[in-house]
Formats: sequence, C-alpha cells, structure tokens
Amino acid sequence: MNINQDLFATFAFHAGLMAVKTLGMAFATVKQRISNNNVMTKEDASMRPGAKIGVGVNEDVERVRRAHQNDIENIFPFLTLGFLYLFTNPALSTATSVFRIFSGARIMHTIVYLWEVPQPSRAIAFFAGMGANLYMGYKVLSTFASAM
Amino acid sequence: MNINQDLFATFAFHAGLMAVKTLGMAFATVKQRISNNNVMTKEDASMRPGAKIGVGVNEDVERVRRAHQNDIENIFPFLTLGFLYLFTNPALSTATSVFRIFSGARIMHTIVYLWEVPQPSRAIAFFAGMGANLYMGYKVLSTFASAM
Amino acid sequence: MNINQDLFATFAFHAGLMAVKTLGMAFATVKQRISNNNVMTKEDASMRPGAKIGVGVNEDVERVRRAHQNDIENIFPFLTLGFLYLFTNPALSTATSVFRIFSGARIMHTIVYLWEVPQPSRAIAFFAGMGANLYMGYKVLSTFASAM
Repeated sequence: MNINQDLFATFAFHAGLMAVKTLGMAFATVKQRISNNNVMTKEDASMRPGAKIGVGVNEDVERVRRAHQNDIENIFPFLTLGFLYLFTNPALSTATSVFRIFSGARIMHTIVYLWEVPQPSRAIAFFAGMGANLYMGYKVLSTFASAM
Repeated sequence: MNINQDLFATFAFHAGLMAVKTLGMAFATVKQRISNNNVMTKEDASMRPGAKIGVGVNEDVERVRRAHQNDIENIFPFLTLGFLYLFTNPALSTATSVFRIFSGARIMHTIVYLWEVPQPSRAIAFFAGMGANLYMGYKVLSTFASAM
Repeated sequence: MNINQDLFATFAFHAGLMAVKTLGMAFATVKQRISNNNVMTKEDASMRPGAKIGVGVNEDVERVRRAHQNDIENIFPFLTLGFLYLFTNPALSTATSVFRIFSGARIMHTIVYLWEVPQPSRAIAFFAGMGANLYMGYKVLSTFASAM
C-alpha cells in the first residue's frame, strides 16, 4: 500500500491543477454574467437593476456553464481514477505522460469551447482526456478485479 | 493510518467501476444526440446540417443527461466516503457488501432510468445507493467526530 | 508519504460532513418537488396524478437544484484539494481552521440560498469557501510544482 513519492507528487500536481482549473470556471461564468447583465436569482437582481434573471437566457453565459459541466463530468472522475492508478504499479514516466495528456487535453477543451474554435477541435480535446481516463480505469479494474 | 490491503483493493475496484460507469454516460448521451439529431452548440451543427441546437429540445437526450447528473450527485460523494470509510476499521465482509450494494444499486438506477421501467423501481435503486452512502457517512462522522 | 493521524482525522471529519451535506440536497429537492407537485419524468407522474412534469417549471424546485449544483462545483474539488493539502506539511491548527472555514461557509451558503437571504450574504459565503479552496490549491501546486 506504499507508493513511490515521485509518483504521488506527479499526481498531486496534476490533480491540484485540474481541481483549481475547474474552480476557475466559476469566475469565467461571473465575467459572462456581468458582461451580459444576466443574473441567476431575484436576490441577485437587487444588486444589478435591469438584469435579466434566469438560466438559459444568454448563450454566452450558457456556453461557460456547459464547459464547466463538462469539466465536472470528466475532471472529477480523474481525481479518483488518477489516485487509484498510482496503486497499479505504473512506471513513473508512463504515469507522468498520462497525467500530462489529461491536463493538456482539458485545458485545450476549455480554450476551444470558450473561443468557439470550429469542430472537430473540441471533440479531439474531449476524447484525449476521455482516453486518458479510460486507460487508467482499465488499469485499475484489471489490477483489482479479483477484489470484486 | 495503514489500511488492510484487501480492504483497499475492494474499494479500488468499486470506485474504479463507478468512475468508469459515470464516464460511460457521455457515450450514452452522444448516442441519443445522434439518434435524435440534437447538438449542443452552433459549431457542432456545422458537422450535422439540419440538427436541432440546444439543451432541453429532445426528451430522450434530456433523460440520459438527467441520469448522468444523478450519477454525479451520488457517485462522486461515494468516491470520497468509500475511501474515508476504509479508515473506520470496518470488517472486510461488511465493507465488501456495502460497496457491492452501492455499485449494484447505481447500475440498476441507470438501467431503470434509461429503459423507463415504471416507478418505484428508480426510487428503490436511488435509495439503496443513498442508504449505502449515508451508512458510510455515519461511520466516518462518528469515527472522526472528536477531530471536528 | 505518511501523514499525521490528527491531521488526517480533521480532514476525514470535514470531508465526510461536506459529502453528506451534498447528499442531503437530494432530500431538499424531493421536499420541494412534493410541495410544488413538480415531478421530473412521465413515469414519476404516474405516482402523482396532476403533477407538472419537467425541469425549470417551478422556481422553488430550481432554487434547491442550483444550490445543489453549487455544492457540486465547490465541495467536490474540496474533497480532493483537502486531501492533497495534507501532504503539504501544514500545521494542524492551520489545517483545522481552513477546513472549518470551508465547512462553515458552505453550510451558510445553502442556508442563505434556500431562505433567500438578501445579497451580498450568498456572495460572501461563496467567496469564503472559494478562498479556502484556492488557498489549499496554491499550497498543493507550489509544493508539487517540481513534479509537473
């Protein structure tokens, strides 16, 4: 149950980066809400008279919210799969590559999504991150299958 | 702070399975989007001329997205509660049962949701998973209450 | 890679509390759905004749769902950041304070959101929790930056 310190450090860096990156989406949403004068609830409207209230009323706001949700769907599973993957005895160089591919893909995904880069850019970024996740998932499940 | 290797292995298997299962919902959504010609953004529409753009326009797509969201709400807390539960000194057989009940309940929840099996099937699957989560939550909070 | 037992216990308590608190939002949603006779799917409507079906049709239900989503966006990153932060060699008293601030802020956030307390109450609770998360994120990234 002991894992190599360098291996853990690599995971800790990338997991921390991805968690902070996901938190950052809240600020991107706030920026779009202010630019487009779109607030979420009536108590918020008291601070911004004339603001449109509600979800789904401004496409720029919704775009950031969708990118945020996509991070939730992909980065949160990574935070657990990456940790469990450390216990499958991976080579440090392999694990570092997998974590870098994941982090790079998710940062690209957000850039491509928010700047509206034409497809298939977003699909490529999505599947690169998904591929890293599924690779780690396969390693975890095959290593621990006997404990089912 | 050391935990039994068999106990960890059981958690690792079920946590890995649940993380991969949640990731799989993305593919179920893509399948419904293609079947129903419903894309999310205007850059996606360039790849599928004539597609309806947006959220909430197709009930089959929304059904998968709701099942995905329900996994997020229940499986992601499990990934942490299950790990912390390992440190509450559970019997291996008890922990294995709790993890199996959770995994089984969440797989049933998705099947019942996507195949539209009449209620109370979905409610039963939901509360079985929730029960496993709350049981582990109680164990964790009571074990570590003095460190509040 | 060994961490102080008291430090781990403090994290375990607060992480367990926050995970259970997030799960609890499901019950708050169910309560509002029943009060407002608003169900999510047509198979649910068979149990509640005359219920309005769908998402976004009742503001009281949507308010709980938004508070739940805000927990997902902030508490789930905490569950990982808090754990990684344990490995940055914090003082026990500092870590305990950070965890208490986070837990307190998120509990306040929900109370303020559901009881519709005027702004800036919700903003203050949100940024207190976000601040704790970003502080831990900074500690994790600076500690493990060499393992990038």
